[in-house]
Amino acid sequence: MRHIISALVVNQPGVMVRVAGLFSRRGYNIESIAVGSSEDPALSRIIIVVEAEDDQVVEQIEKQLYKLIDVVKVNDLPPEESVERELALIKVNAGSQSRSEVLQIVNIFRAKIIDVSGRAVVVEITGEANKVEALIALLKPFGIREIVRTGQIAILRSNRR
Amino acid sequence: MRHIISALVVNQPGVMVRVAGLFSRRGYNIESIAVGSSEDPALSRIIIVVEAEDDQVVEQIEKQLYKLIDVVKVNDLPPEESVERELALIKVNAGSQSRSEVLQIVNIFRAKIIDVSGRAVVVEITGEANKVEALIALLKPFGIREIVRTGQIAILRSNRR
Repeated sequence: MRHIISALVVNQPGVMVRVAGLFSRRGYNIESIAVGSSEDPALSRIIIVVEAEDDQVVEQIEKQLYKLIDVVKVNDLPPEESVERELALIKVNAGSQSRSEVLQIVNIFRAKIIDVSGRAVVVEITGEANKVEALIALLKPFGIREIVRTGQIAILRSNRR
Repeated sequence: MRHIISALVVNQPGVMVRVAGLFSRRGYNIESIAVGSSEDPALSRIIIVVEAEDDQVVEQIEKQLYKLIDVVKVNDLPPEESVERELALIKVNAGSQSRSEVLQIVNIFRAKIIDVSGRAVVVEITGEANKVEALIALLKPFGIREIVRTGQIAILRSNRR
């Protein structure tokens, strides 16, 4: 089952390395990891998406996370009660011939063009991973030059906390 | 000076830990780190924003990154030739009294409300870090419950590569 672990950690250089290290050393299959500032300037929030065989494994991970000195709080966010988002920047070929077609696809996805030159555009999209994948698949025929993606982040729905 | 390092790495559990570890062990001040899939399914791209005293330090980092077996390519993106973006989810109090005011601020920033309950909303915003900061500052008086942010990602402008 897929689990979204949200860990609030002290904002220090080595913390993310220790948290991620805990997973990689045990061979857990990390699907995605993202780290950024939180509502508290002293704390960062790490969102880790893992594929775990059973819930016991996840409980084990939680316990091990709490053993790390800089981990303040760990939550296992139920996917059905959370909103998930990812950000991607996609540089795709778009010369004068193909630009309008690229633009059309971008509009359908409510994505944005944030940079343009004579030969290419940079597209910004946010959404769940499968939405991002779908846009990439549609842009592929034009020639994708580069893709940069953040990991997935998630937050509990507002009626839940 | 601020540097944006973009590293293309083999898609394996421990790579991100080794890359980030290289920075934290040497005490480099990582402002942000983000990791996600790239245009090649076998490779991930790590974007690291660091504050470095001089350019020699960054050259040194690049060389050390190349020594890691799973690092394929390293680029130091000049901020003035790059587009930078970050994604944030902000859960803010918004009852019947304050909701319209929150909505107004969200619209000005071209942010999106992606979840709503009787007492709170979840706002999605993408932009440069200072735009995200500005929105957070304006929403603060309403009562922020939770903030989840990805690290910053960046891509070279389309006329550059």
